[in-house]
Amino acid sequence: MELTGNLIIGNDMPRGGGTRFRAVDPAGDRPLAPEFYTAAPAQIDRACQLAEDAFDDYRALPLGLRADFLTAIGDNIMALGETLIARAVEETGLPRGRIEGERARTLAQLALFADVARRGDFLHTVIEKALPDRRPLPRPDLRRRQIALGPVAVFGASNFPLAFSVAGGDSASALAAGCPIVVKAHPAHPGTSELVGRAIQQAAERLRLPPGVFSLLHGAEHGVGRRLVAHPLIQAVGFTGSRAAGLALVELARSRAVPIPVYAEMSSINPQILLPSALADRGAAIAAGYVASLALGAGQFCTSPGLVLAIDGEPLQHFCRQVAVALQDIPAATMLTGGIWRAWRDNTEALAAVAGVSRLAAGRPAKGANQAQAAVLVADARDFLSQPSLSQEVFGPTSLVVRCRDKRQLREAVMALEGQLTLSLHLDEADHDDARALLPVLERRAGRLLVNGFPTGVDVGYAMVHGGPFPATSDARTTSVGAGAIARFLRPVCYQDFPAALLPVELAPDAL
Amino acid sequence: MELTGNLIIGNDMPRGGGTRFRAVDPAGDRPLAPEFYTAAPAQIDRACQLAEDAFDDYRALPLGLRADFLTAIGDNIMALGETLIARAVEETGLPRGRIEGERARTLAQLALFADVARRGDFLHTVIEKALPDRRPLPRPDLRRRQIALGPVAVFGASNFPLAFSVAGGDSASALAAGCPIVVKAHPAHPGTSELVGRAIQQAAERLRLPPGVFSLLHGAEHGVGRRLVAHPLIQAVGFTGSRAAGLALVELARSRAVPIPVYAEMSSINPQILLPSALADRGAAIAAGYVASLALGAGQFCTSPGLVLAIDGEPLQHFCRQVAVALQDIPAATMLTGGIWRAWRDNTEALAAVAGVSRLAAGRPAKGANQAQAAVLVADARDFLSQPSLSQEVFGPTSLVVRCRDKRQLREAVMALEGQLTLSLHLDEADHDDARALLPVLERRAGRLLVNGFPTGVDVGYAMVHGGPFPATSDARTTSVGAGAIARFLRPVCYQDFPAALLPVELAPDAL
Repeated sequence: MELTGNLIIGNDMPRGGGTRFRAVDPAGDRPLAPEFYTAAPAQIDRACQLAEDAFDDYRALPLGLRADFLTAIGDNIMALGETLIARAVEETGLPRGRIEGERARTLAQLALFADVARRGDFLHTVIEKALPDRRPLPRPDLRRRQIALGPVAVFGASNFPLAFSVAGGDSASALAAGCPIVVKAHPAHPGTSELVGRAIQQAAERLRLPPGVFSLLHGAEHGVGRRLVAHPLIQAVGFTGSRAAGLALVELARSRAVPIPVYAEMSSINPQILLPSALADRGAAIAAGYVASLALGAGQFCTSPGLVLAIDGEPLQHFCRQVAVALQDIPAATMLTGGIWRAWRDNTEALAAVAGVSRLAAGRPAKGANQAQAAVLVADARDFLSQPSLSQEVFGPTSLVVRCRDKRQLREAVMALEGQLTLSLHLDEADHDDARALLPVLERRAGRLLVNGFPTGVDVGYAMVHGGPFPATSDARTTSVGAGAIARFLRPVCYQDFPAALLPVELAPDAL
Repeated sequence: MELTGNLIIGNDMPRGGGTRFRAVDPAGDRPLAPEFYTAAPAQIDRACQLAEDAFDDYRALPLGLRADFLTAIGDNIMALGETLIARAVEETGLPRGRIEGERARTLAQLALFADVARRGDFLHTVIEKALPDRRPLPRPDLRRRQIALGPVAVFGASNFPLAFSVAGGDSASALAAGCPIVVKAHPAHPGTSELVGRAIQQAAERLRLPPGVFSLLHGAEHGVGRRLVAHPLIQAVGFTGSRAAGLALVELARSRAVPIPVYAEMSSINPQILLPSALADRGAAIAAGYVASLALGAGQFCTSPGLVLAIDGEPLQHFCRQVAVALQDIPAATMLTGGIWRAWRDNTEALAAVAGVSRLAAGRPAKGANQAQAAVLVADARDFLSQPSLSQEVFGPTSLVVRCRDKRQLREAVMALEGQLTLSLHLDEADHDDARALLPVLERRAGRLLVNGFPTGVDVGYAMVHGGPFPATSDARTTSVGAGAIARFLRPVCYQDFPAALLPVELAPDAL
């Protein structure tokens, strides 16, 4: 399949009317063919209008058809085979095994939301029949369901070219909810985006869905995304990326005449709390797991463990030595883009230059373009507590070990944490009392708490929460991974005293 | 029971350190004893700190105890008897029957949330046990529940001194969710607020709940509310009131270092759409119902019908004549405060002065202080569509009838509507096709749709939605009345690979 570099707007694939750009192979630092074309303002507007035009028809379809759509998208993605894998590897610098794993996850997400759509639990239907004889007042017939918000803007993420991009979790959950989507492709992988976009377009066409249920826009600058979020017909936004970009979208959405929700997953350092007994008993094993998690995908996971908190002493020193040993085996890895690599390098250098911070250990040196050498730094809790910059995310394979004087200072450090996607406790049975005392604090600071586990690797199911208090996300009440993600794109409507003939089918069980 | 004019901060009732003010009897325009004292900044901070201190203990209580707390509050309110009714009548100018009805509703709300708390469905627990043999990756043990957000600021509303005030729906749902509350009393009914606040304080003391689960602050100016919403320990806000005040709180909450959700119910004109057959067949009955709903409580309901949309012709003219007849029997009614009365008068005059708007009919003239004379105005859809001021809420017994040229213009007028709490369709079977064509448009513009009913009178149950798209509320994904209101104060947390000994009890069914 030949890439066109074009946009996808409903059933059409017009050439974008704006500036041209190319994807870049970060491993070789070379531009890739073909040229992609930024969407012109009128094309963005057209995609939004088509999504709006499709909305009422799409949301009225039987839930089984929504499920079929998601399944067909997965099938079409799988059918892209080597073409998709090769292009994604080329555009991201990620290893083939990682891309294949991500494709499997993407398909699992589509299958999950097909299941969610088919079950229909997300409709939260409630039927309270009339009670004409109730005193002091009769009760009218009241029936409630969740309905879709409307067209949703989805932003592809740089670090998950499949699972958080064109057919990723935001898209799957929005489509399952009944919302048409307009996707802004990430300019770091426009080719991967086009391939997946065409898979969606073909699925929609085959199932004769209203054109406009899906559009894909390209753009290397912020203009396309900004116009999309500001567009009056867009009703919600899904975004995974940096804190600065996420906050800018949140601000833009707030300043609209009619504000809309932005679900931005932004930043998290995913602290690892090593409790004393576990640290003393299993320091080496924890060190190995930590380094492996940190190095995974060049540290470019939202859930990469960027911080270790533990009480200072011989066990922590031993842990640190084991971290240094394990890091020696970690090869430098190509980052997603030159821009991400430069930001990682600058942020790591800035972190190392903070007073009180020293370099503990490093991975193998870089040997090619845009390669990051894994780095672990160390600081005392006193410095950590007094300098907020030490708890800022460094996107990439950089992490900080914080030495606490005692349990009290460890607790203080935990209490000073900003909102996180995840928090891990490493503990033995002898640590249970300490853990129990920390839990109420931890629950308030993260969406997912792990015991003796590392946060990379997010299971896609009904119990998962991939979210968390600000600034991990812009809305702690939601998750962007797992079945719960569908709730982001729904709102309740109550129907009072409706004749059966006018009730939505799921609220008229007697009529079935 | 003697009123003190003091604040309630946990177990204490200190005198407010700020300026003094008095409630005013709007019917007689005379100040009432005693003096109330505005909370000083340090007292606001102390209430927030106590709420924070109470939070972890309160949310860890058995759900049954939360339910008992809500039930005890209801019992204590009922035990206030005549003292409460008399003071509320005096402070609001509302008739005794209305206050008694509102008390019954308040108790029903407390009972509902006691039921909600006891059932525990709102925890949305999901348990996915480990699948160590799953391929390609094993599944960890994942368990999810909803937890309370933290201390909540609740604003008493002027128009519901009981049901949307100190022990109203926001308070009941936040307490049921596990959130301590700090209530800002509405300065129009501080005495009613103190009485109800003491009922809550006594219930908390009797059940030995952590002090700080409830505090009550007074203040006649915006400063108390602003400091409360800006306080770093406050995690969510419940508010019912004007659009301007609601938007100011939303803006304040957004500009915090850590933004928090504000659930503001702000403005709605609750349009009544009269479809042709119903209008022709039952115009007089609809007119009578409309006027009764409009006049209820001096039009001071969030759900007061402020707009009628219908196709012009003899049936609509007949309807208008019947409206005029019915209005003749509507006595002028005392509004809640002098400020609300002046705003109603000014807004009604401004509406009547808009080009194309004329006065259709009026109720009986005012005979006392702060009395509103019900007013129905009329305009053509062309003017309605071209002048956004015609669709702004006028809080009070003022409503506008809009004459549409034909079905197409009626649809256009419906599409131009802002978000509403409610929308009513008046229809006969012959109107079903027209209704069906409008429904997708209506669903997107309101939280509750009614057939052949008027929106005043909000049933408190599991199916109710009292919410709606902006600007009806600041968050269309929620409701402020009914069981669903509890979701506003919760967020999900996932526990991965937790040993049974550390799991929250509701996620460890095997351990029970």
